[in-house]
Amino acid sequence: MPVPALDPATTNRFIALAEACADAAGEILSRHFRTSLAVDTKPDATPVTVADRDAEAAMRALIADAVPDHGILGEEMPPRNPGAEFTWVIDPIDGTKSFITGKATFGTLVALARGGRPLIGLINQPIQRERWIGAEGRATTFNGAPARVRPCGSVADAMLYTTSPYLFPGGDEDRFHRLRRRVRHALFGGDCYSYGLLASGHADIVVESGLKPYDYAALVPVIEGAGGVITDWDGRPLTLASDGRVLATGDAGLHRDVLAILQSG
Amino acid sequence: MPVPALDPATTNRFIALAEACADAAGEILSRHFRTSLAVDTKPDATPVTVADRDAEAAMRALIADAVPDHGILGEEMPPRNPGAEFTWVIDPIDGTKSFITGKATFGTLVALARGGRPLIGLINQPIQRERWIGAEGRATTFNGAPARVRPCGSVADAMLYTTSPYLFPGGDEDRFHRLRRRVRHALFGGDCYSYGLLASGHADIVVESGLKPYDYAALVPVIEGAGGVITDWDGRPLTLASDGRVLATGDAGLHRDVLAILQSG
Repeated sequence: MPVPALDPATTNRFIALAEACADAAGEILSRHFRTSLAVDTKPDATPVTVADRDAEAAMRALIADAVPDHGILGEEMPPRNPGAEFTWVIDPIDGTKSFITGKATFGTLVALARGGRPLIGLINQPIQRERWIGAEGRATTFNGAPARVRPCGSVADAMLYTTSPYLFPGGDEDRFHRLRRRVRHALFGGDCYSYGLLASGHADIVVESGLKPYDYAALVPVIEGAGGVITDWDGRPLTLASDGRVLATGDAGLHRDVLAILQSG
Repeated sequence: MPVPALDPATTNRFIALAEACADAAGEILSRHFRTSLAVDTKPDATPVTVADRDAEAAMRALIADAVPDHGILGEEMPPRNPGAEFTWVIDPIDGTKSFITGKATFGTLVALARGGRPLIGLINQPIQRERWIGAEGRATTFNGAPARVRPCGSVADAMLYTTSPYLFPGGDEDRFHRLRRRVRHALFGGDCYSYGLLASGHADIVVESGLKPYDYAALVPVIEGAGGVITDWDGRPLTLASDGRVLATGDAGLHRDVLAILQSG
C-alpha cells in the first residue's frame, strides 16, 4: 500500500509537535532522574514508574490538542482513535531499566505513522540533551546538524549493539549468537540510544527482537534519513504490523550479509 | 600485611594528583570522542586507540614528575618502579568499546595502592563530567557531594549490572547465570560506570570476572567509602594480586547472599 508523502509545511508542523512532545517528556524525566522512585512491575515483567506515566500523559495531551483526529499508540495507556489515518506512536522511556538505575542512555521515542508506515521519528535523550530527528525524504539531524551513517565493508569489521542477549524470544537467540560470533565487537545495553549512535556513524549493526511498535517506529525515519537500512529479519520494511524483529545497519551491503547470517542454519 | 593509614595532608596531596591525572586524561579523551580514530586490536583481542595511549602517557608524566619514586601500573605501557611501596594503578579508558562507539559510559580510572592494597580511587567520566573519589577512611564523593549506597533487602529485589555475559572465563559464566536468574533485573554494558552508579545508590550488585588490577583497583576505595562492600568471589579483600573476580554490592547483607549463590552448585 503506497503511502502518500507529506507536503513540506505539514512535515514541519508535525516535526514541531514531535519536538514539543520530547521537550515535555524530557522536562518530566529530568526531574525524576536519579531520585527515589517506586518501580512497579508490569504483567510482561518490565518495570514502569510514575515518570513513564506522567511523560506519556503529557505527550498525549499535546497531541490530542493539536491533532484531535489522529490516533495515539503509547506504551503505558490504551490506544486513542484506533484506525485513524495518522497515528502517533510514543514511548516515554525506552530503556526504563537504565532510567531507574541512573544511566542516561534511555530515550523518549516519538513517531508519526500513516497507514502503518513511520514517516517521522524522533529519539530524545534528555539528560545528555541529545536529539535525533528523521523524516521521510529529509536528512536525519543530530542536535540540528546532519547525522550520517558510516560505511562498513564486512561483518568481521562491524561493531554490533543489542540491549541484552536475553531479550531474544525462542529461536531468535540462536540466530543472534550466530551473528554475534562473526562481528568484531558485540556491545550490550543502550536500547534506542544504540540506533542513534548508528545513525551518527559510531556503530554498524543493531539487532533486536521481541520489540513493540512503540519501541521501533521512531527508529525507522531516523535510520533511513541518515543513509542506513532498517527492516525486519526477512528484509521487509518495518510497519506497525511487523513482528518485532529489527535489524539496522549503516552500510547497505552489510545489511544483506547480516540478513544472510540471521537466516542461515 | 596491615597497611599503615596515610595522614590527612598526604591523602589530600595524592587525591589532588589523582584529580590532575583525570583532568589531563579527560581533556585528551574529550578531544577524540566521536572522531574517526584508528582502532588497533591488542593480543588479548581488546581494542586500543591513540586516545588510550596519549591519555596514559599524560597521566604517567604527571605522576613521575610529582612522586618519582612511586610505581606505576597502567593498561597500555610497561610498569614503572615495580616493587615500590606506593603504586599508581591507572586505566586511561575503561570501556574502550563504549568510547569508540560514541557512548559516554566509559571512564578513566586512577588508584593509589600501598603494599598492594588500594587506598585512593577515582572514576572519571569526562563527557558527562561525572567524578567519583574514594579514599580510605573518608566518605566517597560524587562531583564533590557525598555518595552513598542504598539498602537492598534481597537478591530478588536487586538491580544487577555486568558489562557483558561473555566476559566470564570458564566456569564463571555458569556461576554468573545462577545469580542472573535470581535478581530482579540484569543490565549490561557500563564497565567502571556501573560501580559509580552502585556507589551513588542507583544499582545494587555489580559482578565481573577476568578483570586486571587497573580495571578494579580504583573501584575499591570508591565503593567502600560509599558504604558498600567489594571483594573477590570468595569474599576476600581486593589487592593487586587478586584473581580478577569482583563482586560489589551496596548492601552488606546482600553481599553475603550473593557470595553464597556464586559459590553454590
